[in-house]
This record gives sequence, structure tokens and C-alpha cells, in this order.
Amino acid sequence: MTRLDSVIRRLTAQRDLLDWAAREVSAQGLVLELGLGNGRTYDHLRARLPGREIYVFERSPAAHPDCIPPEGYLIVGDIFETLPLFTERFGVGSAALIHSDIGTGDEEANRVLAQRLSPLLETLLQPGGMIIADRAFDLPSCTDISSRTGVAEGRYFVYRR
Amino acid sequence: MTRLDSVIRRLTAQRDLLDWAAREVSAQGLVLELGLGNGRTYDHLRARLPGREIYVFERSPAAHPDCIPPEGYLIVGDIFETLPLFTERFGVGSAALIHSDIGTGDEEANRVLAQRLSPLLETLLQPGGMIIADRAFDLPSCTDISSRTGVAEGRYFVYRR
Ligand SMILES: C[S@@+](CC[C@H](N)C(=O)[O-])C[C@H]1O[C@@H](n2cnc3c(N)ncnc32)[C@H](O)[C@@H]1O
Ligand code: NI
Ligand code: NI
Repeated sequence: MTRLDSVIRRLTAQRDLLDWAAREVSAQGLVLELGLGNGRTYDHLRARLPGREIYVFERSPAAHPDCIPPEGYLIVGDIFETLPLFTERFGVGSAALIHSDIGTGDEEANRVLAQRLSPLLETLLQPGGMIIADRAFDLPSCTDISSRTGVAEGRYFVYRR
Repeated sequence: MTRLDSVIRRLTAQRDLLDWAAREVSAQGLVLELGLGNGRTYDHLRARLPGREIYVFERSPAAHPDCIPPEGYLIVGDIFETLPLFTERFGVGSAALIHSDIGTGDEEANRVLAQRLSPLLETLLQPGGMIIADRAFDLPSCTDISSRTGVAEGRYFVYRR
């Protein structure tokens, strides 16, 4: 498997899972995108979920100009500062879907990030709400339903509260 | 078509075409990769063409450490300086396959680049040699055989001398 093969596999799994989540997400509740990056997955989410409120969290926005969220929907700052404020503002259990893709190439840092982020995300999730992520999270109140999505094991992770 | 869809489509066309070229390339002659980038297509080429001499041209190497060419096979510098020297060293008509993926997001700059590069590449190509590129080149001595590769029209370009 070359690096070209593996990026295609990763992006395809990501797309398949976003498509799956767009079909499965409940009709009520906010959608959160953690990490705007160049805006690809945000672009995909907003196309699949027209009319839904999608909030995007990003420390240093640098996306393609076409992929910047509308006024008020881009929350700029370190997620460990902005997410608790967001929860205060919209309330515990306000999110129907959270997509997290904020990792880097550093596996150890990614693990620590997921550990720290897990309780913050769990608090925001409504009953039946879903977290989809490119790595495992530690979410005692959720069920790992990755195997029900059709995406190959270990490639992407899905949890439902 | 979202930006996520379109990157998947672009990378898949690139992979399909590199696989095609690896099957079609003649047994003799050098392989040239123009632009190392993060090293993905180089990694793919060397996997599909074991034992072949692959020279990589890159202005500012910044690839993944696993994807750096061996000593002597990475030609660092502006391609408009390094390519003529390379032709002097290995001779006119020494290349069996050239893969070019050195564009940026600036379409006008890409067009100018392809125009300037065309005669340099043509000189290097052996009879029957192939150029595959993410944009059109202007190569009077070559035939555009893109439509014979199975890749969707306009997505990738293939020329045979
Ligand atoms: C892998 S990229 C996201 C790519 C995106 N999903 C796409 O398709 O383009 C990760 C992003 O998360 C952001 N990020 C990482 N850690 C962060 C943090 N603690 N707070 C806010 N943003 C963060 C980075 O700046 C980066 O833009
Ligand atoms: Ni654009
Ligand atoms: Ni590595």
C-alpha cells in the first residue's frame, strides 16, 4: 500500500462516513465540525446537510475562500477554550452530530488530544447524537457503532449516545 | 460535487494513470518525477516500477522522511535550471516516462509553466516515451493519447512521442 493508496483510502472512508452520518443524523440539534483545515469536510457536510446549523471550530483559519462558514458559525480559538464557552451558550446536549478531524501526524499527541476532548464532547451530545472521528475517543455514555456503518474497521470511528 | 469529492476524484485519476503508465512504459530509459511534494506519487511510482532509475526534481524538498529518493536521485533546484543540466548529463532522448505534477492553485501561472516546460520535456523523451501530467502540455512531436488510458477526459493528460 503506497502513500497515494492510503490517502485515497482515508479520504474515501471519510466521505463514506459523512454520507452515512448525513442519512442517520436526527432532525433536531446542532452540527459541529472540529478543525476546518482546508475546508473539504466542512464543504461536504454543508452540501449533505442543507439548512442545518453547522458550527466550525478552528484555531487558525486557513481554508479555501469558498469554504469559510458564514458569519457567526466559525468559532476561532483553541478548542479547549472555545468548546466550554459554546456549551455554556447552547447548553448541554445541544449537538446532534460532531465530526472531529483535528489530529496531526503525531500519534501520541493525537491520543492525548482525544482523551482531553472526550468529556467535552460527551457533554455536548444529545441522546441519540453521534460523534464521528478519525481516531478512537473515550466516551463511557456512548456506544461504538463503527461496525454498523460499513466502513472498514479501524479507519474511522463512530459513537452514538 | 464537493471539494472532498473532487480531491478523491483527482487522486484516484492520478493513481489509475500511474498504474497504467507502469504497465505501458518501455523497459529501457529513465523515469522522471517532476515535483516531489509530500512524496505520494513518488512513493507510488517506485512501488510500481521496482528496479527502475527514478530521478526526482524538487525546488524545496519537504516530503515525508520515508519518501525521500536515494542519494543522487533527488535533483534539488529550480527545474528550469536543473532540467537542462540533466539533459546534458544523460543526453537527449534518455527518458522513458516523465510524470509532471508541479502546478499550484494559480491556473494562469500553471499555463505559463507548462508552455515553458514543454520543449525541455520533449527533448528528454525517447521515441515511444511518455509524459503524464495534470495539465495539458504543448508537444508537437508527441501524440495526445489521454483517451486511450481509460481516465475521464480532461482529468489527466498523457502524451507519447
Ligand atoms: C486535519 S485538519 C482538518 C481537515 C479538514 N477536516 C478538511 O477536510 O480539510 C486539522 C485542523 O484542526 C485544527 N486544530 C488542531 N488542534 C486544534 C485545537 N486545539 N483547537 C482548534 N483547532 C485545532 C488545525 O488548525 C487544522 O486546521
Ligand atoms: Ni476556488
Ligand atoms: Ni511515517
